[in-house]
Formats: sequence, C-alpha cells, structure tokens
Amino acid sequence: MPQSIGFIGLGIMGQPMALNLVKAGHRVTAFNRTRSKAEPLERAGARMASSPAEAARGADIVMTIVSDSAAVEEVVLGKGGVLETIRSGAVLIDSSTISPTLSRKIACHVAGRGARMLDAPVTGSKHGAEKGELTFMIGGEREVLDRVLPILQVLGKKHIYCGANGAGLSAKLAQNAIQATMVEVFCEGLVLAAKAGVQPQTMFEIIQSSMARASLTDFKAPFIFKGDFTPYFPLKLMHKDLELAMEAAYAQNVTMPAAAAVKEVYGAAKAQGKGDMDYAAVVTFLEEIAGVQVRTSAAAQATH
Amino acid sequence: MPQSIGFIGLGIMGQPMALNLVKAGHRVTAFNRTRSKAEPLERAGARMASSPAEAARGADIVMTIVSDSAAVEEVVLGKGGVLETIRSGAVLIDSSTISPTLSRKIACHVAGRGARMLDAPVTGSKHGAEKGELTFMIGGEREVLDRVLPILQVLGKKHIYCGANGAGLSAKLAQNAIQATMVEVFCEGLVLAAKAGVQPQTMFEIIQSSMARASLTDFKAPFIFKGDFTPYFPLKLMHKDLELAMEAAYAQNVTMPAAAAVKEVYGAAKAQGKGDMDYAAVVTFLEEIAGVQVRTSAAAQATH
Amino acid sequence: MPQSIGFIGLGIMGQPMALNLVKAGHRVTAFNRTRSKAEPLERAGARMASSPAEAARGADIVMTIVSDSAAVEEVVLGKGGVLETIRSGAVLIDSSTISPTLSRKIACHVAGRGARMLDAPVTGSKHGAEKGELTFMIGGEREVLDRVLPILQVLGKKHIYCGANGAGLSAKLAQNAIQATMVEVFCEGLVLAAKAGVQPQTMFEIIQSSMARASLTDFKAPFIFKGDFTPYFPLKLMHKDLELAMEAAYAQNVTMPAAAAVKEVYGAAKAQGKGDMDYAAVVTFLEEIAGVQVRTSAAAQATH
Amino acid sequence: MPQSIGFIGLGIMGQPMALNLVKAGHRVTAFNRTRSKAEPLERAGARMASSPAEAARGADIVMTIVSDSAAVEEVVLGKGGVLETIRSGAVLIDSSTISPTLSRKIACHVAGRGARMLDAPVTGSKHGAEKGELTFMIGGEREVLDRVLPILQVLGKKHIYCGANGAGLSAKLAQNAIQATMVEVFCEGLVLAAKAGVQPQTMFEIIQSSMARASLTDFKAPFIFKGDFTPYFPLKLMHKDLELAMEAAYAQNVTMPAAAAVKEVYGAAKAQGKGDMDYAAVVTFLEEIAGVQVRTSAAAQATH
Repeated sequence: MPQSIGFIGLGIMGQPMALNLVKAGHRVTAFNRTRSKAEPLERAGARMASSPAEAARGADIVMTIVSDSAAVEEVVLGKGGVLETIRSGAVLIDSSTISPTLSRKIACHVAGRGARMLDAPVTGSKHGAEKGELTFMIGGEREVLDRVLPILQVLGKKHIYCGANGAGLSAKLAQNAIQATMVEVFCEGLVLAAKAGVQPQTMFEIIQSSMARASLTDFKAPFIFKGDFTPYFPLKLMHKDLELAMEAAYAQNVTMPAAAAVKEVYGAAKAQGKGDMDYAAVVTFLEEIAGVQVRTSAAAQATH
Repeated sequence: MPQSIGFIGLGIMGQPMALNLVKAGHRVTAFNRTRSKAEPLERAGARMASSPAEAARGADIVMTIVSDSAAVEEVVLGKGGVLETIRSGAVLIDSSTISPTLSRKIACHVAGRGARMLDAPVTGSKHGAEKGELTFMIGGEREVLDRVLPILQVLGKKHIYCGANGAGLSAKLAQNAIQATMVEVFCEGLVLAAKAGVQPQTMFEIIQSSMARASLTDFKAPFIFKGDFTPYFPLKLMHKDLELAMEAAYAQNVTMPAAAAVKEVYGAAKAQGKGDMDYAAVVTFLEEIAGVQVRTSAAAQATH
Repeated sequence: MPQSIGFIGLGIMGQPMALNLVKAGHRVTAFNRTRSKAEPLERAGARMASSPAEAARGADIVMTIVSDSAAVEEVVLGKGGVLETIRSGAVLIDSSTISPTLSRKIACHVAGRGARMLDAPVTGSKHGAEKGELTFMIGGEREVLDRVLPILQVLGKKHIYCGANGAGLSAKLAQNAIQATMVEVFCEGLVLAAKAGVQPQTMFEIIQSSMARASLTDFKAPFIFKGDFTPYFPLKLMHKDLELAMEAAYAQNVTMPAAAAVKEVYGAAKAQGKGDMDYAAVVTFLEEIAGVQVRTSAAAQATH
Repeated sequence: MPQSIGFIGLGIMGQPMALNLVKAGHRVTAFNRTRSKAEPLERAGARMASSPAEAARGADIVMTIVSDSAAVEEVVLGKGGVLETIRSGAVLIDSSTISPTLSRKIACHVAGRGARMLDAPVTGSKHGAEKGELTFMIGGEREVLDRVLPILQVLGKKHIYCGANGAGLSAKLAQNAIQATMVEVFCEGLVLAAKAGVQPQTMFEIIQSSMARASLTDFKAPFIFKGDFTPYFPLKLMHKDLELAMEAAYAQNVTMPAAAAVKEVYGAAKAQGKGDMDYAAVVTFLEEIAGVQVRTSAAAQATH
C-alpha cells in the first residue's frame, strides 16, 4: 500500500534511498538543505518541500538521513523542523549516525507529539543504497518496526532489531569501532613487519593464512598496497563515529581503551589533511612515523 | 636422508614436534629441563641428553622451542648451552617466540662458531603440532632455509620466508599484535552494545553480516558466549607477545598505539589472575568494568 | 552600584556564591531545581523564583552554575528557561563546566535576544566559593567582561580573560586534563616503585626532591598514603571533565593521547563504584591490578 | 681514605664524575670505548685502561655509567668485561639507567665472584655532575651502600636507599615516567587551549596560579615558548626510559596506561628526527597535528 513519506537529507546515501521509495510507488516529499540535489528525484515524481516541517506534514513516515548530531537536532527539533508538523501516529525513522543519547532525547520529543521514532542507521555503500541492499540496525519499539518494515524492505535486505531507542545506533557504533581498530592495527602490523624487512605482501600472506583473515582486510589490503585511498568510507567520518562510540561508552561506564587510542590516530591523520581519503589512509600516518612504506614504491610516489 | 637432530624443549608444542621428527626417521637427541616429559619420546626411539650442549653435540640441526627470551638465552648462550658444542656447518632453528633483537644477537654468536641460525616461530595449536600442520615464519639466510626445509616439512605445511635474521619473529609478533587487538576490540564492541541493551548474539549477527567478520572471531565468539576460557592460547602468553611486539616497535621507531593500549588491558586481566585462561577472557575484564555480561547468564554463573 | 541578579543553581558552589552576592548588596532572585537549598539564601534576603525564566526576568545579570551540559541547555534553552525572559542588554554568565561547543551555541541564542554571554568556569573549592576566592577563566567579549567585572570580583580573586566565547571553558578543560593526568601518572609511578619494593614514602621523597614536585601532588599525597578519599573533587566529575576535554579536542582536531588513556582509567575506576570518592582514588584501581598497596597497611584496611 | 676505583664510561655524566673522584684523592683507573675523552682525566692524574677488565682489576670499587642495557651487559659480562677481574669483596656501582631485571641478573653474576653490586642511577644534569650535586637512587644491600657512601658523597648530595637490587632503577624509571608524562600532558593542554584561541601565555598563567604548578613546567615552559629545544635531557633518552619503565611494568604486572600512551608520542616525535632535541620538543609533534603554535611566531619561524 503506497504511503506518504517525508524524506529529509539527499546526500550520497539519502538520494538513492529516496529514489527507491518513489520507484516503489510511495508518495515522497523531500527536503535537502541545498536544492541542487533534487532534480533526479523530482523527475522521478517526488515533490520538494521548502523545510523539514513541510516535508513531514501529513506524512505516515518521516525519514531523516543527514550528516551529524547537530544536523539531526536542527531538522527535527529546530525551527521549521519535523517536530512542528509530525502527525500523531506517524513514525520518524532516523538513519543518520549520531549519538544514541541524542537519539533517545529526540525520541522523547517525538513521543510527546503522539508519534514514534526508530533509530535505524545503515551499513553499506552508495552502491548498496542504489540497489536497495543496505543493512539496518534498528532501535525503538518492535511493533513500530513491524509497522514500517515494508518500507525498510524497499531500502535494504537485512533489518536487525537491536532493542529500545538508541540500541540500533549503539550497535552501529560498536561495529564501526571494531572496524576502525581492525584496519588500524592491521596497518600497525604491516608497518612493524616492513620495518624489520618483511615484504608487505609476505606479511599479508601470513595474515591471510591465519585466523586473523577478515573480509574487511581482504578488501582494504589491495587498496593499501596500491596507495589508492579513494574514499569508500572517508577517514573523517570514521573519526566521527569513533568519537560517537567513545561518547556512548562514557555515558554508560564502558571502557574502550583500544578504540580510545585508535581514535587519536585517526584524529592525527585527519588533522594532516587526510580526512577525505578512505580511512585505510591511516596507514600513511604510521608509515611516516616509522619511515617505511608498505605501499609499493610506484604507488607511494603517486600519492606524494 | 635421516639427519642427526638435537631437540631442546619438550613443552606442549615441542614434544609432538620432536616425536614427528623421530617418526620421520631422524636421529633425535632431546633435552628438557624437567626430565618427566621424556618418556613418550624415548619409547619412540629418541635419546635424552643431560644438557643442551650434549643434545647439540655433533648434530646437523639443533632445534629449540622454549618459553621465553631468558630461556633461549640460557639454553644457547648459557653454561652447558648449545654454543659450547654446535659444530661448524650446523643449523640452529629456534622456534621460540622471543625478541627479534635477542635472536639477531644469538645468530651472531652462532655464526662465530661457523654455524647458522634461523628464527622460525610457529603458529598453530598443539593439535597442529601433532599433525605436522604448523605454519613457520622464517628469518635468516634463504640458502640455509633451503637446506633444512625437508626437516621443517615434517613439522609444518606452510613455510614462509620473511627475510634476514629476526624477520620471522617480527612477522610473528606483528601477527599476534593484530590478533590480540582484534579479539580485544571485538569484546569492547560486544560490551558497549550489551550495555545499551543489544543482545550479544544480535551484535554478533551484525558483525558476522558485515566485513568485520573474521575467522578469529568466528572461532572465539562461541567460547566467549559460553564463558569457556579453556586456554587455546593462554592470555599470559599473548601478553608476553604484545610486550615483545612493543619492544620490537621501540627498537625500530615504529609506533603502535592500539597494541600499546591493548597490552595494558591484557596486563590488567593477567594481574587479576586470568593469565592461564584463553586470551579471549579479556572480555571478563571489560565486562566487570562495565557491569554487564556478554556471556549467557548460565555461563556467567558457571565462571563465578 | 547594586544590581539585579538572577542566579540559577544552588549546589555546593552556587549556594555560597549567591549568598556572597546578596551580602554585597545585590538584589538576587534565585532558582534551584530542588527547593530545599533555598533557606539560607532566603534568610539573607534573596527572592526565590519558580523557574529559570522567572529568575532571569528583568535581571541585569543572570548567573548559571549547574551540573552538566544537559542541565545548562535545559535552564537556558528549555521550557521556562532563561532565554524566554532575558532582557536585551543583560549578561548571562555561565560558570558551569560544559562543552565549549554547546556554550558557543547558547551564546548565539542569547545574542539573538540582544543579550550577551560569558563562559566563566571556576576553579577553587566550596571553601574558596565561601570566601569569595575563586579563580574565573572567562570567554566572550572583553567589553562585556569589563562591564560585569565588579560582580565577579565579589566572587573571586582572579579573573583571567581567555578569548572569545568558549575560550574560558577550553582553558578550564585543558587545566583539568593536565591535573587528572598528573595525579594518575603520579599513582602509576608510586605503584611501579612499590611493586619493586620501594617504600611509597621513599618514592614520594624522590619525587619531592626532583623537578616533578608539584603543589597538586604535595596536596594529594598525604591523602593517598592515608587512603582518605573524601571528595575534594569527585572522581566522576574529573571523568566528566576529561570527556569534555576529549570532545573539545575532537571538535578542533587536537590529539590528546595521554588524556585519552587517562580518561579510560578514571572511567574504569568510576564503574567500580569509586565515582563519589576524590579523584585520587584512581590509585586504588592501579593498586588492585598490580596487587600492591601504596597506602599504609592500616589505611588500606580501613578502606576495605 | 683514598680508594682504588675502576671507572667505566666517560660520557657527559661520567667524565665529570670520574674527575671529581680523582680530585678527591682516589686512585682512578678509567675506561672509555673511545679514547678521545680521556685527556682531561689523564691530566688530573687518572690512569687509562684498555678494557673494562683492566680498569676493574684490583679495584675496591668499580663504577659504570654507560648508555644502555646492552652497553652495561657488554662492559660487565662481555669479553674483557668487569666480571673477568673484579675481586672478591669489591663493589660494582652501576649508575647507568637500564632494565631492573638485567641489573638483578648482573648482580647475581657479580655475587658469584664474591663481590657486590648496587644499582645507583642518578638525576641531575652535566652541571650537577660537575658540582658533585647529583641525586642517587640506590638498590642493593644497605650495608654495601654504607660501605661506599663516602665515595658517593663525593659525587652527589642526596643518596636515597630504595631497597634490594633493582629498586634504585625502579624508582628512577617511575620518576622519569612521571616527568615524561607531566611535560607531554602540559603540552597537550597548551595545544588544546591554543586551538580554542587562548594565548599560550594566558594558559600558562592559569596553570601557574593553580595546583598544577610544578618545578618541571616552571623550568620547561620558557624554553617551549621560545622554541628552544637545546637538549637538557634528549627526547630519545626519555623515550628509552619510558621503554624501560614499560618493560619493568610488564615484568611485574603493573599497568601504566598513561605512560604507555605517552611513550608512543615520544616515539613518534623521535622518529620524526627530534630525538636529539630536549624532550619538551614533544610539543612540536602535537602542534603539527593540531595545526597551531604554542611557541611565539618568532620562535616558531626560527625552528623551521
């Protein structure tokens, strides 16, 4: 059954997601801070709103996917925000990666209007968004999830219910803290071995023939060796997610010593101007300190 | 062609390795600090020596696999040590996990007697040692490796040449720093999510359906959830290997911030009396701080 | 010249501060979430308001000193908050220790009403608040500070102008990150030495006769040796300030590896239930791991 | 009563120490790896030996002060080392800063010859060595210390007995871990504040008017602000002492998370070629990451 959907945030992920909803026959009213990204969506049949409040007015479902905590706060709680118009009984699905604490606070405001909220951050690339193959980690009431599941099934293949409000975000942040650390320590190991004269390819072969083999490093290693840091997931966003993970850990008395140390490394790399590269570029920070290359010399030259 | 082999160190790994060499038809003269472990080996046809020097006398190959740097130093350089009797042209293969710097120093002493040394640490369990399926990471001269390869093929399936003396150990330590950190940060993530109300099994499902999936955590997770920390690789040994990795990093101007932080966590867990458990028991240190269990409650009760 | 002052937050620090303002002849209208703390102030001549907005109505100066970022946000921006009534030309002085980013955001809202804001966190104990001997670190416009300086001189002896909005808080957080780390690493050193058989008093004598001697550890050491952790500054608040410092560092691309590591230690100690003790109680966390006491045995027994 | 003293190691500290012993009327036989440094000492009346063994032959006291663990091992246990000739009843005083574990091991060897050993590392500069104003931290038997105290009183003003063999070194390493961390976190704080627009001099004033004021930062701050990193204590030696502290912590199940993190920072700074500067140059590492200067611009230009 076609539904009325307010969609806020037409970034790399948001645009293909909104498009998929239109294609699936839903009535989408979209908002983006900069109007320029609207064209493909309008051509497909979506209507553009001039504010989040307008996009949310009368909608069954309001979906938000914006850059950070401040942006979510603004589009929902700010002037002209979703909260001004969201109708009782509607569901706000926020797929931004933000602080679980903030998400719970927003959920309270939303509940105050008789509506419900789910935190539903995603993993998967732009490509996954286009194909409708994202993975959603979801926090909120299970009955609310059941109600909007058909919509989420248009956008993704896997929908994992995590628990109460904030639980989806907590799972996402735990996940990213693990990935950030796996890649960083993989690079620490490559650099240590390289400095001792072990060819990076040899060290990689050793890792691959051990239990440390992981899909993530299977995927990243060739890019690391080529010195190709085209952003699959930009380093500055990984740094942001580590900060959010540490903030969540702080709020709950959880200690994350490895993630804390790794966050400082990504932060240093970002400060060196590497924020827009893929987060695997953290290897270059470690290489520069050690004075050794794990990249092939051709690749190393290309990036200097 | 059967060879004369001096074998020093009949621990969990050494005993099945020595036995395989005997079964393959080699003349093995073994030494162990405590005599008790000699019986199965003697029954199989090995001779027992009363000192490392006696085990090494006249041998084509001397193999050492003992507990730590101090033990290698003693059995090779100490009184009654290998260096007193090793013949010119012989090869000393040390499969202990020790400091690469110390290994290079010993290699110099060995070269002073006209013999050669390889550092050849292994990965693989007791079971792998019994089946002759270990992986060797090897440092030293390639020609020397070529010469002793038939012997190493009795003991393992994979023999990776890493570079000059110390390179095999450097690769091994890099590898273990990666594994120690992968397991520890996996636990950090599980605990963070659990504290936010995400079921550990759900968090694990999320990790498994992502690129963070790794053989290591595939293997460890069920034990973690059961609270079964039977030592596959004891936590105190992982702590030792992290210390060696950090020492190697120090010696070469390599920075390893994640490994440094993680070493402190294993150290704290070891100090709590968890050194003889599997290193996955690091999860209990994090659980206790957070006041949450990722183990099932039944398992948790069993371990208290 | 007597002024009209709205005062919000009658905690350990706020109550004596408000009292000093009343005694200096100012017209104080105060608000506290729980009414119970109002009595001494009312007896002295202050009026109690039923909301922050009421306390701020018509005031020349509004002063806030509450527990954390969320509390400041609520009393200023929330329903019934200061922003609803603050008059054009008034000055909001916030002496809470909160996020500099949040403080700048609030300053913008305040400016939108034609008023001005200063962040003016303090150092000094309850005793210092009573005596009017606090130190203020101040961010905002210098002319605004000049205007309210007579008021601040009632409360403190030292008023350090740090720069634009948020600069006072940044200085305060930098300061506390330094102090938290000094105390923690002092304890690391005592524990290392104690474990090697050095009497804590001897180690302390060594530190005191070196350039590491600091007023902070002059002051804390006797309490540490006695095992007396009566909260001069509670561990949980130091943990909070470290979190704020790290958040500020994140927001500005600053790396603070020592503070990041130390924050995890305070976090772990807090999770063990030590949050309400003085932050020097961090020593007990390190002692328990090392299995050694730097406290005298009598003191150690008293705290177990 | 004049004594016969073998003195090994004529570096920045050793040369003035040996000279003071000669001037006090003792018979000094000195050894240094490179002969060039012998002249002032020979002119004063010392005899030069061609090996540590020759310097130690017949001596009542043998004093060693060399660069690191490997050097001590060589001059005492190596070929032509002290152990070959030290007479029964003599005392070996080692003032090098080395691993406590190694020191204990050497003490055992020395005891095997009927001699005794003290570990007696010093604090104080070249200037302090010249004036005979060093501070000694001493491990070993107290009776042995009593016996050699008159000699140590020629060299220093303060002699602190710490406990059994290794205790002097443990105290020294604890002390340096504290100082390294105090300076590094002081710089973290300056950089955080500077990035938020707080003038470094203002931040320093805040620290100085607080309990964080310490002799160490009183002394370092002017050099930091001038960007003058003339080595009072070279960064690479501080990095070495942090490594030794961590090694000692490892050996004794002590956790030192701050020192561990700080060691990585000094290591990274050293790898950038800052090893020969004063250890306060760690500030430049933090400055470069943050993209801000705590040095005055004139000073900053001079060092680039």
